[in-house]
Amino acid sequence: MDLVVTGSVGIDTIETPDEQRVENLLGGSCAYFAAAASFYTRPGIVAVVGSDFPAEHRALLEAFNIDTKGLEVREGRTFRWGGRYHENMDERDTLFTELNVLGGESPRVPPSYQEAPLLFLANAPPAVQHAFLQHFPRRELVVADTMNLWIQNEKEALLKLLKEVDGLVLNEEEAEQLTGLRNTVAAAKELLTYGPSFVVVKKGEHGCLFAHKEGIGALPAYPAERVLDPTGAGDTFAGGLLGFLAAKMNGTQMKKLTFDILKRALLHATIMSSFTIEAFSLDRLQRLTKGELAARVREYERMLHL
Amino acid sequence: MDLVVTGSVGIDTIETPDEQRVENLLGGSCAYFAAAASFYTRPGIVAVVGSDFPAEHRALLEAFNIDTKGLEVREGRTFRWGGRYHENMDERDTLFTELNVLGGESPRVPPSYQEAPLLFLANAPPAVQHAFLQHFPRRELVVADTMNLWIQNEKEALLKLLKEVDGLVLNEEEAEQLTGLRNTVAAAKELLTYGPSFVVVKKGEHGCLFAHKEGIGALPAYPAERVLDPTGAGDTFAGGLLGFLAAKMNGTQMKKLTFDILKRALLHATIMSSFTIEAFSLDRLQRLTKGELAARVREYERMLHL
Repeated sequence: MDLVVTGSVGIDTIETPDEQRVENLLGGSCAYFAAAASFYTRPGIVAVVGSDFPAEHRALLEAFNIDTKGLEVREGRTFRWGGRYHENMDERDTLFTELNVLGGESPRVPPSYQEAPLLFLANAPPAVQHAFLQHFPRRELVVADTMNLWIQNEKEALLKLLKEVDGLVLNEEEAEQLTGLRNTVAAAKELLTYGPSFVVVKKGEHGCLFAHKEGIGALPAYPAERVLDPTGAGDTFAGGLLGFLAAKMNGTQMKKLTFDILKRALLHATIMSSFTIEAFSLDRLQRLTKGELAARVREYERMLHL
Repeated sequence: MDLVVTGSVGIDTIETPDEQRVENLLGGSCAYFAAAASFYTRPGIVAVVGSDFPAEHRALLEAFNIDTKGLEVREGRTFRWGGRYHENMDERDTLFTELNVLGGESPRVPPSYQEAPLLFLANAPPAVQHAFLQHFPRRELVVADTMNLWIQNEKEALLKLLKEVDGLVLNEEEAEQLTGLRNTVAAAKELLTYGPSFVVVKKGEHGCLFAHKEGIGALPAYPAERVLDPTGAGDTFAGGLLGFLAAKMNGTQMKKLTFDILKRALLHATIMSSFTIEAFSLDRLQRLTKGELAARVREYERMLHL
């Protein structure tokens, strides 16, 4: 196994600006990440769900060719999240968050996962993310996400974690909050001094900005005319990024990830998230063919060919 | 003469978030546009200033190799504008706007300008922009800017103007206001149906999005770590765009501006505005060498080479 992700698998309720309310959607960072990564490799997920987790949701994950040995079922209710999007699709309100089984012990890591060189730590308390690393003695490249809550309440643990990771993905507000710098370029460069060898600032419809010791870069989003549900865009972005790296690099290369390989991986991250937002949950990725993916990658390359 | 711009030349007061207040700066859309365009061609400006317009400001415009025959001096005070930037450098408050001589008759167009094939109509009342066109019987490519005030109060005149222009540049809020569409891609495409054969939506630090009958494109901004004063970024963007087109195309080509030439011109627009924001007024463009410009163009090309 080349790539393992840990984070949440849950059941989402989404309200869109046109008053549509959709319930019982498969969601969670692990689900989105792994679905995207599955276009490049067979990822393993480490997450916990409750005894109410629908069989069809598990079947869907497996249909993506995701290894679900690490998807632990525990007595109780599955993590549930509800969000309502504003008209511009850029802002959202959290309607509710029920941690349920996610509030308990960390899930077990299957022995077959433990040789994985590539890890993604989706948003979770930094101490939990940190503890996860001990299970992977052969890790070569670790990328982490985080959120405003941990920056505010668990900053010390987060800074400790950042010394152990190779890459950090976060959004603009988080980059500013963590560094105190209003300028996104300055914030991304500053974050390199915290430990990671690369930092990617996700800007939603405005693309991404990235800092690497070889330089600074920026890529636009794929111009999307119809955005139905942006949920999971950030996690599928990360899934495209790490999925691509898993497919293209061996262990030695990972430790010296170049600017050019990172940029190439970010192209795939960008395209993956552009599909996700076209439908609810994993609906669009479920229908996505390798041909459509390749065609959009080529279209985006042409768009940026100067 | 290949390129003529009409708009304002004025005297600006700028307040930056670090409490710096700078007065008596050369400003106005024409000044910024023409300074940027002067790196590619010798542009002519059509604008009016008061009898108080400082000789050193005129000398500076001439030092840029701008043709100032169309810079008419009229009894009275020069247009003055003051703005204060918020900490994020993205938003600003207008401190004052004194139209002064700008409120009178339109300036005369020198006979030597009237064969120009390429025109830029900087922000002005749409009827004034429209009337300007009659002086240019050989115009091949006309690009216009506008602002929220005209969209709100002069929409009919603006829509009439748009039928006569080849290109429109505007910001995100204006694109939304003019079309009623929240999605920027959808808004840009919709604007193509209003008359222009290309539309460029300027997004400041997030780059630009453009619509053309051959397709949709997006380019990131050059990642700028230090932004001292964003004033004039949009006008220098337009100056780089049209300056490049003036240098690269003959009249026949202008009428069939391709997606690829537009994209190439937008690269130069992007780089030009990245220099402007590094200092107040035209200070950075004044010091800018062709070597520095070419180097940053290459750096940006490398950044986007996938």
